[in-house]
Amino acid sequence: MKTQPDDSTLSMAHIFNSAVAASAIGAAWEIGALDELSERGVLNVHQFVTHKQLDTPAALALFRALAAVDVVKREGTRIVPGVNFTEACRTRSFFHWLCQGSADLFRRMPEVVYAHNREGDFHRRDSAAIAFACREISTFSYDPWFWQAVGGLDFDVTSVADLGCGSGERVLQLLRHFPAAHAVGIDIARPALDVAAGAAAAAGLADRVTLFQADVLALVPHEAFDRVELLTSFMMGHDFWPRANCVAVLQRLRELFPGARRFLLGDATRTPDTADRDLPVFTLGFEVAHDLMGTFIPTIADWESVFEEGGWRLHRKHTIDLAVGEVIFELVRL
Amino acid sequence: MKTQPDDSTLSMAHIFNSAVAASAIGAAWEIGALDELSERGVLNVHQFVTHKQLDTPAALALFRALAAVDVVKREGTRIVPGVNFTEACRTRSFFHWLCQGSADLFRRMPEVVYAHNREGDFHRRDSAAIAFACREISTFSYDPWFWQAVGGLDFDVTSVADLGCGSGERVLQLLRHFPAAHAVGIDIARPALDVAAGAAAAAGLADRVTLFQADVLALVPHEAFDRVELLTSFMMGHDFWPRANCVAVLQRLRELFPGARRFLLGDATRTPDTADRDLPVFTLGFEVAHDLMGTFIPTIADWESVFEEGGWRLHRKHTIDLAVGEVIFELVRL
Repeated sequence: MKTQPDDSTLSMAHIFNSAVAASAIGAAWEIGALDELSERGVLNVHQFVTHKQLDTPAALALFRALAAVDVVKREGTRIVPGVNFTEACRTRSFFHWLCQGSADLFRRMPEVVYAHNREGDFHRRDSAAIAFACREISTFSYDPWFWQAVGGLDFDVTSVADLGCGSGERVLQLLRHFPAAHAVGIDIARPALDVAAGAAAAAGLADRVTLFQADVLALVPHEAFDRVELLTSFMMGHDFWPRANCVAVLQRLRELFPGARRFLLGDATRTPDTADRDLPVFTLGFEVAHDLMGTFIPTIADWESVFEEGGWRLHRKHTIDLAVGEVIFELVRL
Repeated sequence: MKTQPDDSTLSMAHIFNSAVAASAIGAAWEIGALDELSERGVLNVHQFVTHKQLDTPAALALFRALAAVDVVKREGTRIVPGVNFTEACRTRSFFHWLCQGSADLFRRMPEVVYAHNREGDFHRRDSAAIAFACREISTFSYDPWFWQAVGGLDFDVTSVADLGCGSGERVLQLLRHFPAAHAVGIDIARPALDVAAGAAAAAGLADRVTLFQADVLALVPHEAFDRVELLTSFMMGHDFWPRANCVAVLQRLRELFPGARRFLLGDATRTPDTADRDLPVFTLGFEVAHDLMGTFIPTIADWESVFEEGGWRLHRKHTIDLAVGEVIFELVRL
């Protein structure tokens, strides 16, 4: 029955196997398999299964999926890095974002494309998984530029608030950077905040951080906001939009944080005229996901058109543009 | 394949984009976009969106994902087939099985690999979506051989039972083939049976079919079973296993269907020494999924070792082996 496959037969098989492997990359990262392979250069499945208390056939299946796309090579139960291993490690958080955090959205694509299925809370993603991935995405997509901006501040920071703090990594890093400061973390997602609370406790920083479960877009005043000097927000600014709403949110934040002297706002932006083919990792998944969710992603020009109206002046712009038009705006209050 | 194998940055981007596109292939099939493109050779997104009452940005995102892996070409809102279109249409049911029906299992890979998370009902798939995909998978993976076996029967069929009937396509086809026959469809999944009931009503065959929601592995006698002459079961036989259980199930079916003269049992089987690379479409997803679920997939030799003990004799074997060791056994009662 088996005939010699042609090019498109091989291509489609590779696309299918890639979809299986993509889930396995996120999983292998989360369970520590990628780190163990990075550190030791080899992984023995039986030892790893015993150490992590895994199911052997399930673990072997995971490594087999990785081997199908050359992330690892498998010789029986001995796993070594494949030719794509280094790049898979660099991009693992994007795969986790897609295949763990956003899986339910992509699964439901045949439903959510229908207009009548787009009422109310029509899509769901795993906020704890998204926060897990975004913590690492942030480290290489924003952090070098973020710390450059923090280093350039011309005032001492005694209080900082992070809007959309997720699992709290940025908040904790700021507390370590400013040992006298207090921090406020605000996020809508309880599962992510639970992770943040655990991390703060584990770091011995729980007494210096206050976590609020709240929608940043519908925030009400709180005394903890009054003395905040530095406002940060990463990977959520697109939720401020569309335009009129964004202006209102920026104005509102200016009122809610009357002492905020600098606002570091980092996010992905829509790059104009994006091609369909040869897109770098993340771009397609990010843009398709937001189109499926009906979330507007502004361009850099869109952003630049709202700051003054929102009561802020653009002090400096860090154009990063690794995959999805990443940028950090340094805003000062007008 | 379109990326240089030694360029791991391009390779990993292609793997990521393939995972996005895989969901879009299943979705494009389900909403009728692949059929429209097949029939007309071109699809205008605005007309399609109006006709199907879709959301325009979401629909455009779907086509963009398809374009990223050459399933279609996109010129603005004009969509035409890409070089992988024909093969994508042939394999679309496998993609749907993976990305719609089985998505939740793959999403939860980081959890289900842990032994302590594998208690009870630890995995969930979308049974209606699986049934939707399996109906088409069956048409090219089993049906030609199935109808050959049916054509070779040396007796008239007045009553047939399909074990694991899913959305009921086989039951309805058998009723059309044997215009005097009555059919019994048994499945554990209510959503799939609801689809089957609707299809039977739509086909005007409702009065000739009896649907039971029941676990085939724990079936109790029913008068409707007594006169069944032909027993069929496709894509569920692996659930009979492990061995001792399979023998018991085969014996039990022989008792429950005392008039069954032929049992057509079609399923995937595990092929020994499967490679990690260059696997045809479906194999990797099917085998990884069953390893994650802890479902034993027997080899053909495993099957051949249980029939006599189970009270059946192997009359004929149809070796299909398109992707996952597909086979149909024709059994006669001992």
